[in-house]
Amino acid sequence: MAASSPASRSAVPEALNALSAMEMVRGISGGRFTAEAVMRACLERVAAREPEVKAWAALDAEKALAAARLADRTPARGLLHGVPFGVKDVIETGELPTAMGSPLYEGYRPRVDAACVALARAAGALVLGKTITAEFAGSAPTHTHNPLALERTPGGSSSGSAAAVADLMVPVAYGTQTGGSILRPASFCGVIGFKPTFGTFNPVGVKPAAESFDTVGLIARTLDDIELFASVLSNDEAMHVVPETPPRVGIFRTHLWDTAQPETVEAIEVAAHTLGSAGATVIEIPVPAYFERMTAERAVINAYERAQSLAAEWQFGRDAFSPQMIATCEKGFAIGRHEYVEAQIHVAQYRRAAAGLFEQVDVLLTPCVPGEAPQGLAYAGDPRFQEIWTMLHLPSLTLPTHRGPNGLPVGIQLVAAHYCETLLLGAARWIGRRFGVG
Amino acid sequence: MAASSPASRSAVPEALNALSAMEMVRGISGGRFTAEAVMRACLERVAAREPEVKAWAALDAEKALAAARLADRTPARGLLHGVPFGVKDVIETGELPTAMGSPLYEGYRPRVDAACVALARAAGALVLGKTITAEFAGSAPTHTHNPLALERTPGGSSSGSAAAVADLMVPVAYGTQTGGSILRPASFCGVIGFKPTFGTFNPVGVKPAAESFDTVGLIARTLDDIELFASVLSNDEAMHVVPETPPRVGIFRTHLWDTAQPETVEAIEVAAHTLGSAGATVIEIPVPAYFERMTAERAVINAYERAQSLAAEWQFGRDAFSPQMIATCEKGFAIGRHEYVEAQIHVAQYRRAAAGLFEQVDVLLTPCVPGEAPQGLAYAGDPRFQEIWTMLHLPSLTLPTHRGPNGLPVGIQLVAAHYCETLLLGAARWIGRRFGVG
Repeated sequence: MAASSPASRSAVPEALNALSAMEMVRGISGGRFTAEAVMRACLERVAAREPEVKAWAALDAEKALAAARLADRTPARGLLHGVPFGVKDVIETGELPTAMGSPLYEGYRPRVDAACVALARAAGALVLGKTITAEFAGSAPTHTHNPLALERTPGGSSSGSAAAVADLMVPVAYGTQTGGSILRPASFCGVIGFKPTFGTFNPVGVKPAAESFDTVGLIARTLDDIELFASVLSNDEAMHVVPETPPRVGIFRTHLWDTAQPETVEAIEVAAHTLGSAGATVIEIPVPAYFERMTAERAVINAYERAQSLAAEWQFGRDAFSPQMIATCEKGFAIGRHEYVEAQIHVAQYRRAAAGLFEQVDVLLTPCVPGEAPQGLAYAGDPRFQEIWTMLHLPSLTLPTHRGPNGLPVGIQLVAAHYCETLLLGAARWIGRRFGVG
Repeated sequence: MAASSPASRSAVPEALNALSAMEMVRGISGGRFTAEAVMRACLERVAAREPEVKAWAALDAEKALAAARLADRTPARGLLHGVPFGVKDVIETGELPTAMGSPLYEGYRPRVDAACVALARAAGALVLGKTITAEFAGSAPTHTHNPLALERTPGGSSSGSAAAVADLMVPVAYGTQTGGSILRPASFCGVIGFKPTFGTFNPVGVKPAAESFDTVGLIARTLDDIELFASVLSNDEAMHVVPETPPRVGIFRTHLWDTAQPETVEAIEVAAHTLGSAGATVIEIPVPAYFERMTAERAVINAYERAQSLAAEWQFGRDAFSPQMIATCEKGFAIGRHEYVEAQIHVAQYRRAAAGLFEQVDVLLTPCVPGEAPQGLAYAGDPRFQEIWTMLHLPSLTLPTHRGPNGLPVGIQLVAAHYCETLLLGAARWIGRRFGVG
């Protein structure tokens, strides 16, 4: 990240809140500082910046500090001992309300944490608070600001998670991605977004949006932290990898290449050149014909499932829905099973065919977003470059390698074959090093 | 069903509670009786039989009657106007507690109905109550009795749903199937169990057990009612079919044939002979080699997902878990991601290969259960004949075509290719007619 940005790590090198989760764990376990000091630093950052950024839907500073003090008095429980993290507000928590970005869920208190929250807490992590989400993880705007340019959107629907991580309030936050809700805000805010293979992180206690696509993932400032949380959430201590050899990279422009703005075209082409010069194999992967159909078929499945998923809320509370969600539900309830099943059958074929994209390469290098974060908060950006991979169930990751004409981040997107998270993270590490990010 | 059974329809022909949902809707809309009279008849049946059967986890008779009276005062809202139904107690309801079969959830009140409940209510159906479930839809026993033989298990985990439908308390009840939790109790209780293709009925608000397998389905006494509810839940008014031609039936003994008791062997062989004599094409389908591996690989996925799904409850409340669930979670938390992913990759291959089973036939005819319901309540029966198809995501249905040595039902199981519910229901109707069931 550029040194001129308010979220820059180099600008506040001494601040505990600016450390990675990995550095926090090492410092706490090494006795160099306490979990309470870390939590206090994060909360102070929140207090200083929240009036402008508006990343948090719920936060209880006293409770968070008490949990940190308790961590300091007890032996390390696991790999995340003492690390504060943020939880997107469509993910249930037992000790803080879960409002789903909707007035219908104001003050809602589930009985227990979502599984992904419980697993992190079992490993010693501490919930700092709930991050602002678009209503039911949809496309309605939020009032969160992009911390790198307050007059711009941070992207959605994991708006608060991306903003909080970018603004050094927490090292890691959870997101969910049904279309592009993790990678797009991560790109707009200049941080790392990671969506693993569908089903990798347990979805229990996460409000479903469109269950065929919904995927829990991570937003962080370092690949160390992505790997650390991914190891805990997937019961795989071997997620951490340091690649010895340059990756084989496939440039994949997608059927949407013409919608990419100049900064995204430049990001991909500069990246291809830089990686090739650094010793990676870089080849162009042609776009299969079926990509042209995917966007429309995804829309059918998305609307059908979103409408059914909100059947209860639709019945008793549709007056409180955003215009965007009303339109989605009306569209979805009008879709018959036949059309839905046909789209599902086609998408299953595309998922199988997607293996062919990786015959000669380890990862695809592909646009993440059309360009920099749009002006204003009314539109959270175009999800089409991200949603392709969510629909295909492939693991994807964005790295903030580039800047656009306004000095704002433009991420590249890396995609690997199903279940090849280790390959993806290894390639991301090698690639990130070429750009001084990750 | 045999006329000698306490649950027989012919024993109480005049009772409104003994009608099918289809007959109830017609009678109410035709002005022959009221929704209140139907609800009252069902509640009276519950009052008479519940002390012995113990099918219900939660029930508010006054609220149910009030809802029925409201239905009588308002125009028909949809295809299910005035029909009482039961909801397995792992499925959330806004107006009745949802206890998940666990003391940890005693009195738990979610904010809204599960999507599948909301969709039925939007079509006019009325929740009579919550039916008893095994703890978190697992394998722990319940205290529900088989209404056909009170000293025997009704099967699980949808114990109360099967018992309530068999005992004429409601025409239809919801179940969930992760292994064999709909079809096994349906078979043991002599009613119809229907599990559609994975993902057909929306899972939002249903407590997940193992998310790769969990499927919402139906228990009913007639195929009319299965089709009626399936149409509403899948937004498909064309689910109703009357087949003109005899189905092509493949006898599929599975790799577990040697575990079938004589009554199940007889059920399959008699059915094959009867259907062939009646004009159906009946051929033997050889069992592919991969079936031998499926049961073990299913167990890996099941344990890994169940453990993670209960991560929160495991942390704060494992003392309240059954010994069965503790064993599953301990096994599951010990499974690393690598083993889980390997099993997932294999199972995905089996799902694709399963299309080959239907190259020459419309449906498979295969054992549903080893035999009659076991004695006692301590063991809810063997799920292996049912869980194969849940894992493969194929639609399956049991029909109570046969009786065992103790006069108790032994269902056959019919299975169709992915998304071929219409074919499955059509074949079930033709086959059922040969046996006077359905």
